[in-house]
Amino acid sequence: MSDVSMDTIVSLCKRRGFIFQGSEIYGGVGSIWDYGPLGVELKRNVKAAWWKSVVHRRDDIEGLDAAILMNPSVWKASGHVDGFTDPLVDCKSCKKRFRADHLKGDSDIKKCSGCGAQINLKENPPRLFNLMLKTFLGPLEDSSSVTYLRPETAQGIFVNFMNVLNSRSRKLPFGIAQIGKSFRNEITPGNFTFRTREFEQMEIEYFVTPEDADDFYKRWVETRFNWYLELGVTKDKLQLRPHGENELAHYAKACTDIEYLFPFGWSELEGIANRGDFDLKQHAEHSGKDLTYFDQTRQQHYLPYVIEPSGGVDRATLAFLVDAYREEEVKGSKRAVLSLHKDLAPYKIAVLPLLKKNPEIVEMAKKICSSLKEDFVVKYDDTASIGKLYRRQDEIGTLYCVTIDVQSLEDKQVTIRDRDTMEQERISVDSLQKYLKEKLL
Amino acid sequence: MSDVSMDTIVSLCKRRGFIFQGSEIYGGVGSIWDYGPLGVELKRNVKAAWWKSVVHRRDDIEGLDAAILMNPSVWKASGHVDGFTDPLVDCKSCKKRFRADHLKGDSDIKKCSGCGAQINLKENPPRLFNLMLKTFLGPLEDSSSVTYLRPETAQGIFVNFMNVLNSRSRKLPFGIAQIGKSFRNEITPGNFTFRTREFEQMEIEYFVTPEDADDFYKRWVETRFNWYLELGVTKDKLQLRPHGENELAHYAKACTDIEYLFPFGWSELEGIANRGDFDLKQHAEHSGKDLTYFDQTRQQHYLPYVIEPSGGVDRATLAFLVDAYREEEVKGSKRAVLSLHKDLAPYKIAVLPLLKKNPEIVEMAKKICSSLKEDFVVKYDDTASIGKLYRRQDEIGTLYCVTIDVQSLEDKQVTIRDRDTMEQERISVDSLQKYLKEKLL
Repeated sequence: MSDVSMDTIVSLCKRRGFIFQGSEIYGGVGSIWDYGPLGVELKRNVKAAWWKSVVHRRDDIEGLDAAILMNPSVWKASGHVDGFTDPLVDCKSCKKRFRADHLKGDSDIKKCSGCGAQINLKENPPRLFNLMLKTFLGPLEDSSSVTYLRPETAQGIFVNFMNVLNSRSRKLPFGIAQIGKSFRNEITPGNFTFRTREFEQMEIEYFVTPEDADDFYKRWVETRFNWYLELGVTKDKLQLRPHGENELAHYAKACTDIEYLFPFGWSELEGIANRGDFDLKQHAEHSGKDLTYFDQTRQQHYLPYVIEPSGGVDRATLAFLVDAYREEEVKGSKRAVLSLHKDLAPYKIAVLPLLKKNPEIVEMAKKICSSLKEDFVVKYDDTASIGKLYRRQDEIGTLYCVTIDVQSLEDKQVTIRDRDTMEQERISVDSLQKYLKEKLL
Repeated sequence: MSDVSMDTIVSLCKRRGFIFQGSEIYGGVGSIWDYGPLGVELKRNVKAAWWKSVVHRRDDIEGLDAAILMNPSVWKASGHVDGFTDPLVDCKSCKKRFRADHLKGDSDIKKCSGCGAQINLKENPPRLFNLMLKTFLGPLEDSSSVTYLRPETAQGIFVNFMNVLNSRSRKLPFGIAQIGKSFRNEITPGNFTFRTREFEQMEIEYFVTPEDADDFYKRWVETRFNWYLELGVTKDKLQLRPHGENELAHYAKACTDIEYLFPFGWSELEGIANRGDFDLKQHAEHSGKDLTYFDQTRQQHYLPYVIEPSGGVDRATLAFLVDAYREEEVKGSKRAVLSLHKDLAPYKIAVLPLLKKNPEIVEMAKKICSSLKEDFVVKYDDTASIGKLYRRQDEIGTLYCVTIDVQSLEDKQVTIRDRDTMEQERISVDSLQKYLKEKLL
């Protein structure tokens, strides 16, 4: 097992263009990150792999892309307006605000984690602080125009349940999948992109007949666990953690987390929950709309149960990055490699002209690069010596380097180097496309 | 030219699952729309076609995915805090708020478009209303925590200029491309998904040596215009509209809109602007960071000029939908077809078993469907008669229908039907993959 530190990952991310601090030139902004040229490709690949696996490769799931801004009644119905809160307390000495349940101390006497002063929770009781980010929609800025930035994508699916059911002539069991941004005003975010105030979710709500819910719940736990394994995550660093009864939300029948062993400890990548009919029931009640499903076989109307596999795009991306990183000694010097799965690597191939001042080599390299671009994400790079270029491509996870040298001009062969084994072979330009298709597609 | 009405498009979108009203079961929310199962695929394809064309197929552009929430100083520097406003006026009779420049009437005496009362702009002068949506980040809700939902993705690119330049060892000319959500508190949104409060942009900032700016500006106008043509938009419905001098923003050297002839008139899909060095200069000044580029050939530091092709994902998606829609008479009955470009159609292939009660046909159909899914987005559909299924697939733009009938069990051949010509051919199952790859990839 690799023992990479978060510092190494954060530094690689900035140096190579995976992830930058948001608004960095202005000193940043509350735990928010921007994905750079490499990061955007990696994250796109994570989302594409998920979408392919849950929407395109299956016959029982429809996609959706609901808006971030929803009617505020949605969050009343879902329980977020009243219940999505943290207990906060103000320190009277340093005037800063803290999560009461994170302060150290005995029963009601806590120690301020800012200035160290005593905070007496009896005299200064914590107040509930809603984690939803608020905005005002329309020309007035008052309570009538308050709208929230969604704290989860799930509710966009529930309110569209009938629209999808009817427009797509669906029968149970079927699911709706969605990828999108959510926002939470976390008081203590941290661990790089693991817990942030703006993040991306990939969620499925899978609607089933109530009696089948437990079976489907178990199947989804397995399916989702395997997804991470299939994309190369180390098996020993992935675990299932079923929630105890006292840990379950009041509406959940069961819940299991998929956890990854990050440098900062076991942490949740995804949760799979059996939510019963809680959500549809709430929305039916608050909207006054009939959200029951008509079961033709039974000739019965009922509210489906729902199984929810809910994963974090940024967390999955971070886990893939951390898990793929390794350092090794090659001929006395350090080599850093990102052994990302072929479907996830930002660039599949790098085309490197050995002599960038030789116009014939450059011409041949550009021609090869442009023909490979028909099928792959390819980068042309001539900005350093070949040794440096190899190391740089290893560090960003590029699977194959194709090098064009003087001999290539004569024998129409190029050198292909494998990222993981570092083995090189000469191969004719004519068979290059076929060779790479077999390896990569 | 087709004369489809917006009503026809809006109705198709809801009925077939392209676009639903946001939070519809709660009566909607201020001009916001949700993309359904078909819409999410279409929009994904629009974005993928753009990304492939501007990032993957080129060597001179890097991708980026900056956060929606940025440090508020960004919007001070960009001019949005002070200048991104509409003049609003309150009607004293009906107490509603209107855009002063949209009210009818003579000079200072206007007519309220709500109740018809007189509004005297001299006694009741318009106030400037900022179009940025505001939120509060962190545990306090006061002016110190005000943050904005970005009104454009462009600034995320400018503040990351140095990070991208350095991490990717770039030289001028090069660009940074980004797709993402933006928000504007529009007072008069409308025309379905054309003008909404939450929308998605696809923007490039292309950095060049100042002397080359005009050349690159012209090239980008042409490149972007051709992109819409290549994806099948009717040439007669697409036009370039160069901005007049009096119409240009104070910082812009030149700007051209690409417009489409929607049922509601010629309207902007994308604008290509030469913004000079305005943005980098503003951010250098406000952040105190040196954002100049060091030109090795000239041994000079300078601020690059920037050419900005800025398009709307929702607008492009709507234009592709409207443009592809046609109705024709086939054997005495109406056929509605979405003749979407093959790269844009939500589903490439539908697999239809002719008799859904024949288990052998169903087995064969499912097997074909699952093998085609290796390469294509395919839908299995057995929820209606074959005539209805064909019409349904035509209406959502599916390129090919593959039908499996009793004879298929014997001769191992299936019927392929072309969406546009409605021609059918029998083809052996063994050559199906190859046939479709040639047509679709």
